[in-house]
Amino acid sequence: MKKILIINGPNLNLLGVREPEIYGDTSMEAYIDSLRQRHPRVELDYFQSNHEGAIIDQLHAVGFDNAVDGIVLNAGAYTHTSLAIADAIAAIQTPVVEVHISNVNAREEIRHRSLIAPVCRGVIAGFGMDSYRLAIEALIG
Amino acid sequence: MKKILIINGPNLNLLGVREPEIYGDTSMEAYIDSLRQRHPRVELDYFQSNHEGAIIDQLHAVGFDNAVDGIVLNAGAYTHTSLAIADAIAAIQTPVVEVHISNVNAREEIRHRSLIAPVCRGVIAGFGMDSYRLAIEALIG
Amino acid sequence: MKKILIINGPNLNLLGVREPEIYGDTSMEAYIDSLRQRHPRVELDYFQSNHEGAIIDQLHAVGFDNAVDGIVLNAGAYTHTSLAIADAIAAIQTPVVEVHISNVNAREEIRHRSLIAPVCRGVIAGFGMDSYRLAIEALIG
Amino acid sequence: MKKILIINGPNLNLLGVREPEIYGDTSMEAYIDSLRQRHPRVELDYFQSNHEGAIIDQLHAVGFDNAVDGIVLNAGAYTHTSLAIADAIAAIQTPVVEVHISNVNAREEIRHRSLIAPVCRGVIAGFGMDSYRLAIEALIG
Amino acid sequence: MKKILIINGPNLNLLGVREPEIYGDTSMEAYIDSLRQRHPRVELDYFQSNHEGAIIDQLHAVGFDNAVDGIVLNAGAYTHTSLAIADAIAAIQTPVVEVHISNVNAREEIRHRSLIAPVCRGVIAGFGMDSYRLAIEALIG
Amino acid sequence: MKKILIINGPNLNLLGVREPEIYGDTSMEAYIDSLRQRHPRVELDYFQSNHEGAIIDQLHAVGFDNAVDGIVLNAGAYTHTSLAIADAIAAIQTPVVEVHISNVNAREEIRHRSLIAPVCRGVIAGFGMDSYRLAIEALIG
Amino acid sequence: MKKILIINGPNLNLLGVREPEIYGDTSMEAYIDSLRQRHPRVELDYFQSNHEGAIIDQLHAVGFDNAVDGIVLNAGAYTHTSLAIADAIAAIQTPVVEVHISNVNAREEIRHRSLIAPVCRGVIAGFGMDSYRLAIEALIG
Amino acid sequence: MKKILIINGPNLNLLGVREPEIYGDTSMEAYIDSLRQRHPRVELDYFQSNHEGAIIDQLHAVGFDNAVDGIVLNAGAYTHTSLAIADAIAAIQTPVVEVHISNVNAREEIRHRSLIAPVCRGVIAGFGMDSYRLAIEALIG
Amino acid sequence: MKKILIINGPNLNLLGVREPEIYGDTSMEAYIDSLRQRHPRVELDYFQSNHEGAIIDQLHAVGFDNAVDGIVLNAGAYTHTSLAIADAIAAIQTPVVEVHISNVNAREEIRHRSLIAPVCRGVIAGFGMDSYRLAIEALIG
Amino acid sequence: MKKILIINGPNLNLLGVREPEIYGDTSMEAYIDSLRQRHPRVELDYFQSNHEGAIIDQLHAVGFDNAVDGIVLNAGAYTHTSLAIADAIAAIQTPVVEVHISNVNAREEIRHRSLIAPVCRGVIAGFGMDSYRLAIEALIG
Amino acid sequence: MKKILIINGPNLNLLGVREPEIYGDTSMEAYIDSLRQRHPRVELDYFQSNHEGAIIDQLHAVGFDNAVDGIVLNAGAYTHTSLAIADAIAAIQTPVVEVHISNVNAREEIRHRSLIAPVCRGVIAGFGMDSYRLAIEALIG
Amino acid sequence: MKKILIINGPNLNLLGVREPEIYGDTSMEAYIDSLRQRHPRVELDYFQSNHEGAIIDQLHAVGFDNAVDGIVLNAGAYTHTSLAIADAIAAIQTPVVEVHISNVNAREEIRHRSLIAPVCRGVIAGFGMDSYRLAIEALIG
Repeated sequence: MKKILIINGPNLNLLGVREPEIYGDTSMEAYIDSLRQRHPRVELDYFQSNHEGAIIDQLHAVGFDNAVDGIVLNAGAYTHTSLAIADAIAAIQTPVVEVHISNVNAREEIRHRSLIAPVCRGVIAGFGMDSYRLAIEALIG
Repeated sequence: MKKILIINGPNLNLLGVREPEIYGDTSMEAYIDSLRQRHPRVELDYFQSNHEGAIIDQLHAVGFDNAVDGIVLNAGAYTHTSLAIADAIAAIQTPVVEVHISNVNAREEIRHRSLIAPVCRGVIAGFGMDSYRLAIEALIG
Repeated sequence: MKKILIINGPNLNLLGVREPEIYGDTSMEAYIDSLRQRHPRVELDYFQSNHEGAIIDQLHAVGFDNAVDGIVLNAGAYTHTSLAIADAIAAIQTPVVEVHISNVNAREEIRHRSLIAPVCRGVIAGFGMDSYRLAIEALIG
Repeated sequence: MKKILIINGPNLNLLGVREPEIYGDTSMEAYIDSLRQRHPRVELDYFQSNHEGAIIDQLHAVGFDNAVDGIVLNAGAYTHTSLAIADAIAAIQTPVVEVHISNVNAREEIRHRSLIAPVCRGVIAGFGMDSYRLAIEALIG
Repeated sequence: MKKILIINGPNLNLLGVREPEIYGDTSMEAYIDSLRQRHPRVELDYFQSNHEGAIIDQLHAVGFDNAVDGIVLNAGAYTHTSLAIADAIAAIQTPVVEVHISNVNAREEIRHRSLIAPVCRGVIAGFGMDSYRLAIEALIG
Repeated sequence: MKKILIINGPNLNLLGVREPEIYGDTSMEAYIDSLRQRHPRVELDYFQSNHEGAIIDQLHAVGFDNAVDGIVLNAGAYTHTSLAIADAIAAIQTPVVEVHISNVNAREEIRHRSLIAPVCRGVIAGFGMDSYRLAIEALIG
Repeated sequence: MKKILIINGPNLNLLGVREPEIYGDTSMEAYIDSLRQRHPRVELDYFQSNHEGAIIDQLHAVGFDNAVDGIVLNAGAYTHTSLAIADAIAAIQTPVVEVHISNVNAREEIRHRSLIAPVCRGVIAGFGMDSYRLAIEALIG
Repeated sequence: MKKILIINGPNLNLLGVREPEIYGDTSMEAYIDSLRQRHPRVELDYFQSNHEGAIIDQLHAVGFDNAVDGIVLNAGAYTHTSLAIADAIAAIQTPVVEVHISNVNAREEIRHRSLIAPVCRGVIAGFGMDSYRLAIEALIG
Repeated sequence: MKKILIINGPNLNLLGVREPEIYGDTSMEAYIDSLRQRHPRVELDYFQSNHEGAIIDQLHAVGFDNAVDGIVLNAGAYTHTSLAIADAIAAIQTPVVEVHISNVNAREEIRHRSLIAPVCRGVIAGFGMDSYRLAIEALIG
Repeated sequence: MKKILIINGPNLNLLGVREPEIYGDTSMEAYIDSLRQRHPRVELDYFQSNHEGAIIDQLHAVGFDNAVDGIVLNAGAYTHTSLAIADAIAAIQTPVVEVHISNVNAREEIRHRSLIAPVCRGVIAGFGMDSYRLAIEALIG
Repeated sequence: MKKILIINGPNLNLLGVREPEIYGDTSMEAYIDSLRQRHPRVELDYFQSNHEGAIIDQLHAVGFDNAVDGIVLNAGAYTHTSLAIADAIAAIQTPVVEVHISNVNAREEIRHRSLIAPVCRGVIAGFGMDSYRLAIEALIG
Repeated sequence: MKKILIINGPNLNLLGVREPEIYGDTSMEAYIDSLRQRHPRVELDYFQSNHEGAIIDQLHAVGFDNAVDGIVLNAGAYTHTSLAIADAIAAIQTPVVEVHISNVNAREEIRHRSLIAPVCRGVIAGFGMDSYRLAIEALIG
């Protein structure tokens, strides 16, 4: 069994609940259940916060001593503005994969620069909810 | 009756309490009372936080299902740095008016760019505390 | 009675006359009449020109000796290119409020910078024709 | 059976053959064989060229009429300089996934901008040779 | 006798009439009289307009066939925004000296760049009204 | 019969009259006569002004209700500085073709950016006076 | 008889064959036939390649000793990235006219800069397939 | 006795606990004890948070009425991204000294700009943990 | 009698001695003699150095206690690179006039920015050797 | 005993002698005497020059073989323009601490970038003359 | 005997054949013969292509296993646009010397940046055809 | 016999004496001796200074009347900051070759721009001490 934590950043609590044309019609919980069925040997946890500081706290909480085997992080808009989250990723031991539901490079200029990508293991963007699945498959090899 | 929520961002808890030459000598509470007297048919609520995440949480809380009819948002310095608040405004249904007490265009370069203006209904800046009154009058038509 | 002059800059003579999807279907004259009815104690005058120099001449003409109590200026595209109009506003005594019908921050990059905003009393943008009404209400307090 | 074409751009013919500290010690051919074993229901083809024009020709050749079901493209340095390859991807019907072996965001500034990402389905970068596997799994769902 | 035309651009009609702390307390007419007394062998003419086009028209009118021997041009804010005036100066035969009352390099960034300087004979800035006198003395040698 | 209006901007009144090494030795009037002979089925009108506002007024005057079938606009230096003319072109119904006598891309940096090109039908530059002829032939098909 | 060569760059082999909403529904061959009928005294040749180097080779092949009287070049995306093609145009004797089917100035920022325009005779953009016809008419006078 | 508060920003809770090659092997608590021994006449308090808003709250809490005599602030990554913390420092009465353990000017470009330095009393950077000691000695004179 | 010091910066020792097409054919000494004849009531001194530090030393030496009444400074290339000379000018009491023989705005981009202009009394550029004479006349009124 | 050399750059010879509102009213010599009294076990030397080259010479003279134990360098304006001083600091063995009397980050943009900071041990800025004392205390531990 | 390969990039096939004022009047072949006579112990080969991909192919072909002892590369315009050639140089084992016939730093801005220089052994530019000779002498020591 | 002067700029007096990992282990004097032996028909002189002004003085001293036949200049950090040295090179008659020991293009951004290269005969960089030899061989042909 591998343990993986999915962290979702600001506004991603609206996934599947509100505004389906932006955030899709699958709730994150339902989606995670489908991932658990597809990958029964992966123990999946989930954390969401709109607070930059809470995301850093959480990265610290699971980032050492093999608390989890990998982190899948969709930092939302903080991807482009939070050097503090980047420092947290650089400080912890657990590998982090950056994911995005949309193809951020096809959106506004400000979303083309990721402050956290340089300290992540890798980046997966543009595949809708499937980006999370691919990140898990990247972490479990 | 229309319900309007005023949201104040970082450092605006100091309004009328501290540093009158920067933040004026009217407390926000006293000012809101005067607004209620001027507009008796508007139900005014007030929320202030220095936390970017708490402002996003609050926008989500009142942004759907006509919880309120409009939001007057003075995001303070987050106006210029928070793409996450901008995403929250874009995601909710309630119209948001951006306000500033001072004329931000007459201040430092970094305060000339608003990340949230493109997703707001409109912008009102430079009229002192009166900016809030005008924003309410913009929302009630 | 307060006297207020509305100055409209280039292409705003087309308001309500031509291209309703861009300029709306209310003519400026009809709109000003409705403002006069709503604010009977305000004497409203109106000036429009496509000429940068004519706008400067007009600002000089009414900008001293309390000729008017306030100016509502929609400088159109000159907002972004005319340092000369900005100098005129800085030179006169009458307070000037910058208004825009559309939310200029949601349009092209070049329309995000206002050369005249730093010398205006304040800015109101994005409320359609209502931006003019709010500017008057900002000037009369 | 799904048909997928992997296209490798400039210098990627050196993979596993030369300079293992840069290009790894797995040859592309050996790696593709391992992918075929892992995904027996996927028919994998491979094309490599150091010529920008040849990559465009190849994209045209397989980009219409379901010639293949998906394209995995590692455009190497052309990722950052070739608007012509971007136009080719935009013109064809077949979905294209951009992949990179290394984490391009952790390298020099010039490699942070991808000209082709905005017209690709999505981007996968930083997982070594595994980036190709994940791209295939993104295409076959 | 030498003939020299002084051309003043936007807002310089306010010199000595309005806002003495910005525009000084000497009217342009009084100042020109003092120049005529100091330089009796120079025939001085004066033209002022707030209209960019009118300044171009005037440059054309006196710029050929030795209509005048030199032009002293204080283009005000058009110095920094009018490529059209620059083209007019380049097209005419009469030498033009750019003058400024204030030290433009000590003001805002936008006033550090002169579009017309490259096509003028020279530049004199920062000496108050004396800048005009020096420009005349530059032209008459 | 098609009606086409040629509009020339600042300094182009000097064409063929002054400074032949810059503006050529053909007067605009003579050139238009030759165009009329070459295209007898086209009714050609001509307007020139050094005033940005007058060009906008003229675009409005002929821009609706098929007053003319097309406009050939050489905006001179205003091409690079006038967002107001661009807005006028965007507002009117008549198609506008941007022309330049010289190859503006081979001149200074500031002349490489056209503010009006994005709202014109197309651009023709660098063919000397022939640029006007080609623009007419573009409009009449 | 005048000999003119039309050179089309990357992705323009798709004209009229694929993706009509991008590349129109007229094939280049059919269009060239219509041009030959319209201009029977012009001998028209056609060359297309997706290879930057092949376009340079071709420019060299016809660029000297009056091999052809003029070249109409639609360099596609290479317009914006190929300094090498610009050097080839500068080196040859034959005049080259740059053409674009779409109005490149109305597209993304990167398409506003042409590396080849400064060394071409002139530029024609935005008239659909008609841009080629106008370029020929520019070359034959 | 002087009262001084040390505020540490994001990720600085890891000091001496985790990742010694980045954060050193001295815990902040042990280090503060050594400072207390060295400066027995200084009452030292300590606050750490990964939350931008919590740092602002804390600055407000101690920033008035001589609650403390000085604040030593290592804002970590927020140094470079938080205009809101800068506004808080500007609003309070207590002097703030900005410190950094590492020499931020020798790190990546983004760490060369401090948003908070302009409103601090001064800056001390690059002396390891000793930066805190020097800041205290700067405050007590 | 007024005392004025002319300071010439790097390479200006070559004036009139070497390279007449760049530096003219009048030696600085001969030119100063002619100035003395023209202005017999001005005591003119002259200092030249290619050393930035020596120019600063000299500014200090004459910058206080009315040692001289004014300084005419042609700082040559140091105009554009020496913030240290600018600081020296700001520190001394004597007024300094910046002069240039050539029209620096018509030369390369790097020569358009003057670091010293903001702290000088004014700027005179482009009148050949006459720039020195005009600067003296600016200082003596 | 530790030996420390204080090096002051351009214009700092004016400290306490001239312009007290800029350079304070304490002479450097008096200040150094007070430092010697406060730190009797430190042997303090002092060097000042307005010449960039002389500062480099001095750094070389004391930078090897433990000639001194540390250097406190206030490079004045050369901080922002001298890559040569930065190279000298990088070449020598003695640690160098960069100091500034004023808070350079609160001054003009050009003073926000330090060319020498990346090769110094650390930076201390904004504490008036006390910056020197703190730098010594940083060097002696 | 040492083996050295000279590679010439786009448009350099025109050397000595066409446009002597740009490309000189010595053919590359004749020049190489003169080099062979001057350096009889060096075996010189020559390769030219206008195709970026062909230059990469050639670098791969001779870049390993001591196929040649050194490469002299004049990449022409690709020097400034080809990151792919830079990657090829970085990947091969053979040392590469970048040469230019002209002094590229004295030409347009775009030619001041070399993408390939950072991965070459060194750069020689500006000595006409002699640049090749010096590069060979750099490689043979 | 040809006379050549080698000029070394700031910090290059440390060559072979100090810091061998930066400046190599060959002293400049020893190296010049070896050059004299290799090129017995060249009379080599050597000058070094850390002073920008002294380098200019020296360039003037040998730059006219065939005092020497060529100058080899390694201006060190002044390469990137000294417009005054560039002006000196442009003013003298003797050809100057710019050399660098290291490959400056592979170092920090600020070292990629040479202010002096545009006025030098050519540039040789990256060949260690051999860069000087190659520069001499470039000058003697």
